[in-house]
Amino acid sequence: MEKNTVLAKESIQTQVLTADALLDHWQGHRKLTRRVIEAFPEKELFEYSVGGMRPFADLAKEMIYMAGPGVQGLATNEWKRFEESDTPPPTTKETLLQLWDETTEQINDYWPQIPAQRFQEKIKAFGQWEGAGYWILFYFIDNEIHHRGQGYVYLRSLGVEPPPFWDRQ
Amino acid sequence: MEKNTVLAKESIQTQVLTADALLDHWQGHRKLTRRVIEAFPEKELFEYSVGGMRPFADLAKEMIYMAGPGVQGLATNEWKRFEESDTPPPTTKETLLQLWDETTEQINDYWPQIPAQRFQEKIKAFGQWEGAGYWILFYFIDNEIHHRGQGYVYLRSLGVEPPPFWDRQ
Repeated sequence: MEKNTVLAKESIQTQVLTADALLDHWQGHRKLTRRVIEAFPEKELFEYSVGGMRPFADLAKEMIYMAGPGVQGLATNEWKRFEESDTPPPTTKETLLQLWDETTEQINDYWPQIPAQRFQEKIKAFGQWEGAGYWILFYFIDNEIHHRGQGYVYLRSLGVEPPPFWDRQ
Repeated sequence: MEKNTVLAKESIQTQVLTADALLDHWQGHRKLTRRVIEAFPEKELFEYSVGGMRPFADLAKEMIYMAGPGVQGLATNEWKRFEESDTPPPTTKETLLQLWDETTEQINDYWPQIPAQRFQEKIKAFGQWEGAGYWILFYFIDNEIHHRGQGYVYLRSLGVEPPPFWDRQ
């Protein structure tokens, strides 16, 4: 009984997720998103949408612009927008996928440099989004899941079978 | 230099998220999903979709069936499917929202009863999905974000402005 009481009190501070597990979780999602980009025909990737929304290439670019510079920002506290870099916006499926893969490396490289306390510190990402470090990261991840789900509707309405949602390998 | 080496080694076990923060994060998302349900006209909620997909009411029911019984399962290790309960599937927007709110309470009630170690233990949710407890929870949450994103496309193609993605209050 005594042990249970102690456990109950401790549960407020129960830790759910390590930084490594969160990185794996995100990169798993990113593998799936990469397959969604691949599933689009070239022309439709850049031009097709439903309900007046943005084409999937624009949504994928938004994910890239948040993810790479965002993790770099969390690691260094310097928030450089992608648009300030020398990299031109991708205009083909091939260059979009290439930039996706470069972002994968950028995330992996900067992730171990994020200071442990940064995940809990209140920060202002890109001088714009304010919240704890973990909250900012979940904003990046959730925004990717949200827009990828929209890509599933675009693909279905094009008659293309999207990759399975549960597969993150 | 020595300090950095120690930090790098420690980062493997850096904790990112407490159970309380994860509950807040999820319930924030659930508030937004509730507003998406509300945004649909009654008829379209149950009948409209794009690309031969399921109507949003079916997606919302899937979220409900995972969330309430899922958190109960994580707390008790008994996995009872919603379909085995006495509650009939909702057939109106009002009863769907009512069931949504009952699920909100069910999650809040069972959450503090999830044993601390359960978040890391390998479990088999509903005898079907295998993974660490935190992985199962993220599956529920990410599945909700994924399908809600699809609801945004349905709403846009109906000419209805969806609620803002960033607002989780």
